[in-house]
Amino acid sequence: MNHTTKCRMLIMLLFVALSNVAFGQNRLPGIAAETNINAESYPRILPDLRVMFGVKAPDAQRVQLDLGKKYDMQKDADGFWTCTTDPQVPGFHYYFLIVDGVSVSDPASESFYGCGKMSSAIDVPEAGCDFYALRDVPHGVIRSTNYYSNETDSWRPINIYTPPGYGKESGRKYPVLYIQHGGGEDHRGWAVQGKTATILDNLIADGKAEKMIVVIANGNVSRGGGGYNKKGMEPFIHEMTKNIIPYVEANYRVLTDQKNRAIAGLSMGGGQAFYAGLQNTDLFGSVGIFSSGIFGGIARQDTPAFDAEKEIPGLLTNSKRFNEQLQLLYISVGEQDMRIDATRKQIGLFKEYGLNVTFETFPGDHEWQVWRKSLHSMASKLFK
Amino acid sequence: MNHTTKCRMLIMLLFVALSNVAFGQNRLPGIAAETNINAESYPRILPDLRVMFGVKAPDAQRVQLDLGKKYDMQKDADGFWTCTTDPQVPGFHYYFLIVDGVSVSDPASESFYGCGKMSSAIDVPEAGCDFYALRDVPHGVIRSTNYYSNETDSWRPINIYTPPGYGKESGRKYPVLYIQHGGGEDHRGWAVQGKTATILDNLIADGKAEKMIVVIANGNVSRGGGGYNKKGMEPFIHEMTKNIIPYVEANYRVLTDQKNRAIAGLSMGGGQAFYAGLQNTDLFGSVGIFSSGIFGGIARQDTPAFDAEKEIPGLLTNSKRFNEQLQLLYISVGEQDMRIDATRKQIGLFKEYGLNVTFETFPGDHEWQVWRKSLHSMASKLFK
Repeated sequence: MNHTTKCRMLIMLLFVALSNVAFGQNRLPGIAAETNINAESYPRILPDLRVMFGVKAPDAQRVQLDLGKKYDMQKDADGFWTCTTDPQVPGFHYYFLIVDGVSVSDPASESFYGCGKMSSAIDVPEAGCDFYALRDVPHGVIRSTNYYSNETDSWRPINIYTPPGYGKESGRKYPVLYIQHGGGEDHRGWAVQGKTATILDNLIADGKAEKMIVVIANGNVSRGGGGYNKKGMEPFIHEMTKNIIPYVEANYRVLTDQKNRAIAGLSMGGGQAFYAGLQNTDLFGSVGIFSSGIFGGIARQDTPAFDAEKEIPGLLTNSKRFNEQLQLLYISVGEQDMRIDATRKQIGLFKEYGLNVTFETFPGDHEWQVWRKSLHSMASKLFK
Repeated sequence: MNHTTKCRMLIMLLFVALSNVAFGQNRLPGIAAETNINAESYPRILPDLRVMFGVKAPDAQRVQLDLGKKYDMQKDADGFWTCTTDPQVPGFHYYFLIVDGVSVSDPASESFYGCGKMSSAIDVPEAGCDFYALRDVPHGVIRSTNYYSNETDSWRPINIYTPPGYGKESGRKYPVLYIQHGGGEDHRGWAVQGKTATILDNLIADGKAEKMIVVIANGNVSRGGGGYNKKGMEPFIHEMTKNIIPYVEANYRVLTDQKNRAIAGLSMGGGQAFYAGLQNTDLFGSVGIFSSGIFGGIARQDTPAFDAEKEIPGLLTNSKRFNEQLQLLYISVGEQDMRIDATRKQIGLFKEYGLNVTFETFPGDHEWQVWRKSLHSMASKLFK
């Protein structure tokens, strides 16, 4: 039996399970989430994408689920608390259990670094969406190591995706995408939650993207993130241009010309990509900004009304220069993200001034399904 | 300032902090543990290696720390619960907070896959012990990817350490150590808790170990681990010999002769290394067994009195054959581990029958400090 056949059979089994609303030894509805640990039964995803959560807590007075929206859980006679949510948007949602007022990760789930701590998450599958599924194609690797930063005077962890064949094609050099996580996340975000390796492996196998290296650094360079404005981004820009890029170029077979170097990021990382990329168009030939709050739409003291021309002189009034220097300026945002109106308004202004920008929206709020799709789309357009 | 000087200064600062018992903005005693997230103040390690834990839980009725031994935590007027433990043995100890009866990981700490779920851990530093500290030496990388297993009919994650220089020495092939985690852990154990990369980087930099590849697979091949006896180990041995080794040898530049292939593991993984290694001395030239319960010392239905000759025919009565085939048979155990007496007894029997065995003990119980030291010692003896 080949993998494609196996895959089809698994999908059929999944469908049967979803249809019968009876699956597994416990005859519980739906299917156990793939992020559950040790064959735990909860959380469970129901056919209509509601999710059931459960935890054993006989002595607790009150247990809630915090999935952005909070749900009160109900205790049964055995002291097992459950709740069933509203239907969820497909994608990756951080959550916590609140046990008598203490917000903790769910012992039944994998944990992920997000929200500034180790968080549980539910990854709600999207029908027909397989661009980040593990497939029987050549696989690249994520390489984890440390480099020394003279910005923080410390070793810093870094993850680097190398495409399939990198080890064997010893004479070949590759273009590089530097990609940044959001606030409260770190260098694990794009490697784990973002599924960078499978997205790139699949794109490359299907001939839809060039083989490239993707560098996933820890963008928390300033204590507390450093703020989302131009000043706050400076330590990161220094780290990227003076430490990360030189480290990568000294240790990996990468193309070092501007058009083969791209930078992108999500949310806080989108702001970092905006400033690092557009201030340094001699270094970066492509820039990607996913779900960034810098254009507005979020209430923060450090983000006054955004003035693109002030932030990046010439971006509007000398858009021709940017159009000539950039191969791709890619901007995306979730259709349910509070940042969408401000982003659309800015895109309108960019177009009015003749700045070439590729703008896309995807269903979803401020979360990883939008960012996986953004990477998938941007990567397919890079380095052509 | 070079890194050695920086290192010395950091150690001096640490010493000052430990001496003054006053450090940081909060004037709290001791120092925040390095596994804390986001500059959290707790857990804190005191100069005498007692550890203070703390959590905000104004509405909880009872909060305990579970560090193997349980400690009741005390609530202050602000609803912040704390406790201070007995002095801890240096090393890596999993722990949980128990909030009104629910065992959860500590929101202030990193989480690690151990104890069959995402667990908190406190890594108590050992004075003068720097063999697993990040140093300014050439660094290898841990490569994360997936391979297809026909044992489990699924993709399985795998971590592979490649030494510094692997990418550039394109004509060179390397010996390989396959190393396994314990029960309730997975392929992340040796990569994260075990600090394999820094241990090997330091050994190699100091000329104390050969450059080698270390393969860190997920040993949970059977559902529930498969038991610790010979029968229970069979799916793992099949996975190792039929899937993992062929995958590694097809994708990495490794030496494929017996004397350049070693297998080791801790606890459950020690049992796996014992059976996989000693049943297949045509494949493995060196075998390492760290803190394994197969020799006895733990009460389990599936481990009756251990009979080495029955488990591996000839191991005692034809020890000469094993001495000729094995370059190294390495066995270690913690000095406070309940498995030590049974292990010593077995070592005595091995020696009585003339089986060459290198046996070491290290201070500590059944935990990662012992295993880090075991890897450090065994790796320095391999492939000479």
